[in-house]
Amino acid sequence: MLSDIEIAQKAEMKPIVEIGEKVGIAPENLENYGPYKAKVSLKFTNEVLSKPQGKLILVTAISPTPAGEGKTTTTVGLGQALSKLGKKTMICLREPSLGPCMGIKGGAAGGGYSQVVPMEDINLHFTGDLHAITAAHNLLAAMVDNHIQQGNELNIDPRRVVWNRVMDMNDRVLRHIVVGLGGHANGVPREGGFDITVASEVMAILCLADSIHDMKERFARIIVGYTYDNKPVTAGDIHAQGAMTALMKDALKPNLVQTLEHVPAFIHGGPFANIAHGCNSVLATRTALHLADYVVTEAGFGADLGAEKFLDIKCRFAGLKPDAAVLVATIRALKMNGGKAKNELTESDPEAVKRGLPNLLRHMHNLKKYGLPIVVALNMFPSDTEEEKKVAFEACKEAGVPVAESTVFADGGEGGLDLGEKVLAAIDQGSNYKPLYDLDLSLKEKIETIAKEIYGADGVAFDGAAAKELAHIEEMGYGKMPVCIAKTPVSFSDDPSKLGAPSGFTLHVREVKVSAGAGFVVALTGKIMTMPGLPRRPAAERIDVDDEGNITGLF
Amino acid sequence: MLSDIEIAQKAEMKPIVEIGEKVGIAPENLENYGPYKAKVSLKFTNEVLSKPQGKLILVTAISPTPAGEGKTTTTVGLGQALSKLGKKTMICLREPSLGPCMGIKGGAAGGGYSQVVPMEDINLHFTGDLHAITAAHNLLAAMVDNHIQQGNELNIDPRRVVWNRVMDMNDRVLRHIVVGLGGHANGVPREGGFDITVASEVMAILCLADSIHDMKERFARIIVGYTYDNKPVTAGDIHAQGAMTALMKDALKPNLVQTLEHVPAFIHGGPFANIAHGCNSVLATRTALHLADYVVTEAGFGADLGAEKFLDIKCRFAGLKPDAAVLVATIRALKMNGGKAKNELTESDPEAVKRGLPNLLRHMHNLKKYGLPIVVALNMFPSDTEEEKKVAFEACKEAGVPVAESTVFADGGEGGLDLGEKVLAAIDQGSNYKPLYDLDLSLKEKIETIAKEIYGADGVAFDGAAAKELAHIEEMGYGKMPVCIAKTPVSFSDDPSKLGAPSGFTLHVREVKVSAGAGFVVALTGKIMTMPGLPRRPAAERIDVDDEGNITGLF
Repeated sequence: MLSDIEIAQKAEMKPIVEIGEKVGIAPENLENYGPYKAKVSLKFTNEVLSKPQGKLILVTAISPTPAGEGKTTTTVGLGQALSKLGKKTMICLREPSLGPCMGIKGGAAGGGYSQVVPMEDINLHFTGDLHAITAAHNLLAAMVDNHIQQGNELNIDPRRVVWNRVMDMNDRVLRHIVVGLGGHANGVPREGGFDITVASEVMAILCLADSIHDMKERFARIIVGYTYDNKPVTAGDIHAQGAMTALMKDALKPNLVQTLEHVPAFIHGGPFANIAHGCNSVLATRTALHLADYVVTEAGFGADLGAEKFLDIKCRFAGLKPDAAVLVATIRALKMNGGKAKNELTESDPEAVKRGLPNLLRHMHNLKKYGLPIVVALNMFPSDTEEEKKVAFEACKEAGVPVAESTVFADGGEGGLDLGEKVLAAIDQGSNYKPLYDLDLSLKEKIETIAKEIYGADGVAFDGAAAKELAHIEEMGYGKMPVCIAKTPVSFSDDPSKLGAPSGFTLHVREVKVSAGAGFVVALTGKIMTMPGLPRRPAAERIDVDDEGNITGLF
Repeated sequence: MLSDIEIAQKAEMKPIVEIGEKVGIAPENLENYGPYKAKVSLKFTNEVLSKPQGKLILVTAISPTPAGEGKTTTTVGLGQALSKLGKKTMICLREPSLGPCMGIKGGAAGGGYSQVVPMEDINLHFTGDLHAITAAHNLLAAMVDNHIQQGNELNIDPRRVVWNRVMDMNDRVLRHIVVGLGGHANGVPREGGFDITVASEVMAILCLADSIHDMKERFARIIVGYTYDNKPVTAGDIHAQGAMTALMKDALKPNLVQTLEHVPAFIHGGPFANIAHGCNSVLATRTALHLADYVVTEAGFGADLGAEKFLDIKCRFAGLKPDAAVLVATIRALKMNGGKAKNELTESDPEAVKRGLPNLLRHMHNLKKYGLPIVVALNMFPSDTEEEKKVAFEACKEAGVPVAESTVFADGGEGGLDLGEKVLAAIDQGSNYKPLYDLDLSLKEKIETIAKEIYGADGVAFDGAAAKELAHIEEMGYGKMPVCIAKTPVSFSDDPSKLGAPSGFTLHVREVKVSAGAGFVVALTGKIMTMPGLPRRPAAERIDVDDEGNITGLF
């Protein structure tokens, strides 16, 4: 089979205006970025609000392993399948970060015959949204340090600046730095650091804001640091929100592209799924729902992180009512969750599959708590055997959850027809979506509810500093916000070595902070990396361009 | 009179495809970025090489003062005037850096009724070229530090990494930093720093490369540091050039926009005029010359820096033969060069104008050494008096150089008709362009030639380290490159307090370095700032956006 980039480069794309017309976006509402990418005007995203809404399908997955689950691929494939079944469908995806493309990860635009295109553009600069976020974020950082340098009227404690800088690159030496060296003309020295751009609160805000006005107000609420007497200092105090919004006004417009089978797709926003909520923008999802009868979207990592945040943060904030969830699993990932080593995954081992099932079952069980109809999608690999498949299928049947084989990677939409039909049937049963917890609970109670109900923890231990800061956050008036737990995606617990469905553990919260602009309180457990590094042999070493501008080596 | 942004926002722009058609660019050769900006395909820039070439006019200026000379405004206005005179004209400008827009400087897209539009887009993200440069530059930086971290096979001395990081922001605390702190998983600690993006050698390369192939080869030649035994390590040794080119392949395409009077303009590339050569891209200028009968372009700072580098570096490399030079002066700047204080410039003072004339005359005299016909453009301000103007006009007459009043700021192309006619007449005299010095001279001799012939220095003093490094650079085989002197733009000398036309001074070269990818050797004199800071009240504090996305407060 061809590689992803070879398939993508052979694709015959349709002009983006034709794709837009499929779902009623007239050319004058599109701002083209070359012939195959466009932004949708905010005037249009506002106008469509009066149209009826379609059905919203979330694609999520079991706990991720290095074997890969194919969540984005399944999202694209399911969208293509629903389209083949005659349904007016749109897909909503997160936009990839450029940094990891240069490391190990490769692209994030689906795979095989279920990709969004133009693949290289989407994976590199796309329409510049991430660059705009980098600029807006770093403008605020420069203004904060400039304020301190120019007299520090606001009395900011340089040791308590909490606004890092960002870069869309995997660059480990920037994690911990000292800035402002070289004498008094060069600023006030202090410890600082860079995160990767997708970890920026500006990204989270882009994804939750529903208008320019809302985005600007959220920017103004961002906490950049604390005064010597522990009072928060905001971007509004620094007068940065206007210029930040000027830098972000185009980034707020959803990006339209197409799948290999010409299904319209919005690719817009991509916040981290640990320190942020891990889903594409509210504006894209909402607009798609008013344009199509079925909208397929995804959320980051496994269902314990991605789906939980999609359902408790994004849908709650945006007033969205999801109609079904698709839980993606692979035989390989089940085997790894069952204790099988990565280099033994091509051996048939139905027993290992069986040992991995509790992971799948717990995610199923969790999703039911939100009142959603569920379908399991078994994303097939050539090495999967009939015996292994049977184990997975029987477990789903026993749990009373429909399951479908999906071969959308190899076959495109055709490989997702059974899945599509089962999803349509599940939607017909109706959804009783409700968030997991009430916002009136205390922050501690909210964290405990997620830990017990979703992760299966016995309880939560808060580090002294974390407990103190939780009290401070409530004191500052942010107690009614939802919580966003930053946890390893690999395990239900905060210990990445505990695969499967661990129980009898305590979740350790070592730090909490408020993302006041985004509107949630982040609880950090374990070690969360917000600036990746490059591997020994970075993917960048293999990426090349020929004299005609054709890129090779980008997966 | 309305402000620049108000004039720009009232402009009725024509669709960019119509602008392209004026000079024979068919719609299929344009990649639109919204309705009013487009990139021109490299296939097209190649095809036009077979067409005949038009005339090339350089707009340069006397030594800059805070009063402003209006070089970009004159460039745009002259282009509009030539168009009004019935000539098929194109304009080639540098693209602005986003960072300084947030500081004091404001936009860089001309002024009044001689602007390029859409002004806000051009000043902010435009088509993403600067973001691409930032990404490509920082990818190389991350790969260098990653190489050191992952075993350092190339034996790079971490104390001698010469490749800084870049950001398109005025952020003084990033000038001198320590990276790689926080323990062994976070890299090898070393001193580092950030420059502003336009100072990147990647920018200089973008502006000198004539194809994707050439750009990639230049990237490979970039020196990123030295080994413990003083051998250069290049981006090619790090295997970064392919991925850098992938990130830069679209940035290499010239950007087409229009002036307020719908004259087609390429705005492409904008390297610093001190540590780099300060002109727009070779590809844009060359393409424009094959599309139009007259091409008006500009170079950074005053003629001692901008024009010298345009003529000795860009034109030499690109095989361009300029046909005339326009030297822009203002009564205000002449008065400041004559010793008048900034807050007294609105007082009429013909004597101060007279005292400032030697600056104008030396720039004239210098330009003649390149064999170019010259026209002086006196860019008029409302406060200028007849007596003052007379002083300037008589001096030009005495020097035998045609001079024209220009009111293009207030009147658009109409205000440049006399200038346009004088420029056309000057071109008819013919140009005998030749660079100032021969590349076969030693690096020292080349620096001395520029210092004596252009700056009026008695001689050059090289710091010990600089002299040693010059020898090392020649040893490494870079002795035949042109030199690029980084000097204060304010004075002909390296002392910013010496205005007018100082003589009897020695130029001090304190550091030299080779930009092996760009292809020149940089000699640094005095203190050159490659990362600006924000002022006490940054322009960013006043920039705002209304709910419909209209920007205010950006000049």
